[in-house]
Amino acid sequence: MKKICKYGTHRVLEPAGALPQAAYKLDNAMDTAPNEIRIDVQSLNIDSASFTQIREEAQGDIEKIKAKILDIVDKRGKMQNPVTGSGGMLIGTVAEIGTALHRTDIKKGDKIATLVSLSLTPLKISEITAIHPDIDRVDVTAQAILFETGIYAKLPEDMPEALALAVLDVAGAPAQTAKLVRPGDSVLILGGGGKSGMLCCNEAMKRVGPTGNVVAVCVLEEDRQRLLSNGLCHHALIADATRPLAVLDKTLEANGGREYDISFNVVNVSNTEMAGILPVRDGGIVYLFSMATSFTQAALGAEGAGKDVTMLVGNGYTKDHAEIALAQLRDNPKLRKLFTERWA
Amino acid sequence: MKKICKYGTHRVLEPAGALPQAAYKLDNAMDTAPNEIRIDVQSLNIDSASFTQIREEAQGDIEKIKAKILDIVDKRGKMQNPVTGSGGMLIGTVAEIGTALHRTDIKKGDKIATLVSLSLTPLKISEITAIHPDIDRVDVTAQAILFETGIYAKLPEDMPEALALAVLDVAGAPAQTAKLVRPGDSVLILGGGGKSGMLCCNEAMKRVGPTGNVVAVCVLEEDRQRLLSNGLCHHALIADATRPLAVLDKTLEANGGREYDISFNVVNVSNTEMAGILPVRDGGIVYLFSMATSFTQAALGAEGAGKDVTMLVGNGYTKDHAEIALAQLRDNPKLRKLFTERWA
Repeated sequence: MKKICKYGTHRVLEPAGALPQAAYKLDNAMDTAPNEIRIDVQSLNIDSASFTQIREEAQGDIEKIKAKILDIVDKRGKMQNPVTGSGGMLIGTVAEIGTALHRTDIKKGDKIATLVSLSLTPLKISEITAIHPDIDRVDVTAQAILFETGIYAKLPEDMPEALALAVLDVAGAPAQTAKLVRPGDSVLILGGGGKSGMLCCNEAMKRVGPTGNVVAVCVLEEDRQRLLSNGLCHHALIADATRPLAVLDKTLEANGGREYDISFNVVNVSNTEMAGILPVRDGGIVYLFSMATSFTQAALGAEGAGKDVTMLVGNGYTKDHAEIALAQLRDNPKLRKLFTERWA
Repeated sequence: MKKICKYGTHRVLEPAGALPQAAYKLDNAMDTAPNEIRIDVQSLNIDSASFTQIREEAQGDIEKIKAKILDIVDKRGKMQNPVTGSGGMLIGTVAEIGTALHRTDIKKGDKIATLVSLSLTPLKISEITAIHPDIDRVDVTAQAILFETGIYAKLPEDMPEALALAVLDVAGAPAQTAKLVRPGDSVLILGGGGKSGMLCCNEAMKRVGPTGNVVAVCVLEEDRQRLLSNGLCHHALIADATRPLAVLDKTLEANGGREYDISFNVVNVSNTEMAGILPVRDGGIVYLFSMATSFTQAALGAEGAGKDVTMLVGNGYTKDHAEIALAQLRDNPKLRKLFTERWA
């Protein structure tokens, strides 16, 4: 093995000089370098954009989904969807902590969730034991490697594993919402019915205060009802985010005809960039959290429509994001109940 | 033709409901709707990421480049590179102003440059008369349509057309730099030798003041010398932006071992996202201006390395950007000379 590196470049097989996320292929041999942590993996939480793409390609056939996942990991040494480029995260037990690491927060045998993407995590699957397409989860017998800079969270003791996993999977979303939303803001959330969407809604409602307006856009009527009846937004409406002009009309109506201060796009399908851009005022913020986002569609689309908005790439990491995300469920029993019913 | 729309959706042939930039195919019939402007096109300035991709695919063969461009426009009704998704801009003469538009700033016969991307501009090419691969320019006999929201600039009278075109092509870059760079900042510019890079450098030097540090990374030694000898940065160094760890080492050394407050990535090739992310401090800004940027590589790469940075999608449009860009050349004779020598 090459000289060990805190970012894991010693496991990059091709292309040379790349970091693990950008690499086509990683070395997934399970001998552990002194600065690595080896994990006995129990489940993969596939990123929603990735799982949706694979499920559609496999036309919902579970065996084909299995085969596709095994094929990707076999070819790349990591579970990175070649179409979306995204990964997901995993849950498992610490099997070995490299001799050069001095970790006091975890020990061998602890249950952890990784908070870095599967798209840069060396993974070797022995067997896929079950696929849960409704929650994008894949149960496996597998091993994975966490690099020195790879972040993780020890699973909390006050909630079931599956519930913690569902929240940690999208931990960046509520922490970023907390940083950006100001009192009095009008906030548009596209994809409000999903995990990220609900956490964004919940955090936005806390931040905007009595004079703000939080509007969620969903695909399903049951999601719309669920958001409203649980007080997770002021208005919720049904629209297809791949049709930006229709979204523009409906969302402006839900905000008294005014453009929004900020939008969050957490939709898990392609071609929704402009639905989050057109309704935002000049000088406003467009937060792009979907792994199905096209960089050029956002950049050139905003320019083409003459929208002077600040567009942010959703960074899955920000300081204390795991604690902030878990606190959402601890502080809001209704949200916890919703998450438990749907994803745990 | 469908109901006319200020964003140009009446010309979208597929998929339904998409805006012109996201569309696969536009109607490039040259009958002008009441809210459109028709342009007799003189030259296309192909986006650098797009032209680089086409040139490499054609192995530098001019006839193959021509054929590729004609093929793209024939299939899509617009010059949008299917690999990079990007376009460029054009220069031409106003041939017709739709009857519903009341423009006082331009009239039939005026020379204008479009400031919206070719990736959303209906275009019909009769003939490619010349290709200038050194400046990504394609001379054509062609017609194009500008939508109601499509922005443009009348060519200034105090500089040659080709010079104005070279600057307007990347007009967003200096205006965005002006908004983000603060006195005392350390600023890293990847791709400093190109048009965007030089404009970013020039603007950053003005903004950081005496206590800041502007560091440019280039590929060619002649670019490095040119930047330094013209006072466009404090330090310039040679590095391959597709090798982020090598860039990290060299750039930190040029900033006294400290991480940067802000980086601008204006490189025109793929896989350079992490080179702009790793050298930036937690809480710093990463500005992604390259059309070769991968959204997922930026988002998941930053997360994977545990970098708590704010990543911005380069918006080609911001208020007064064309005037701000042209003023750069008017205010700095050395920069104007450099642009004239290389791109005009």
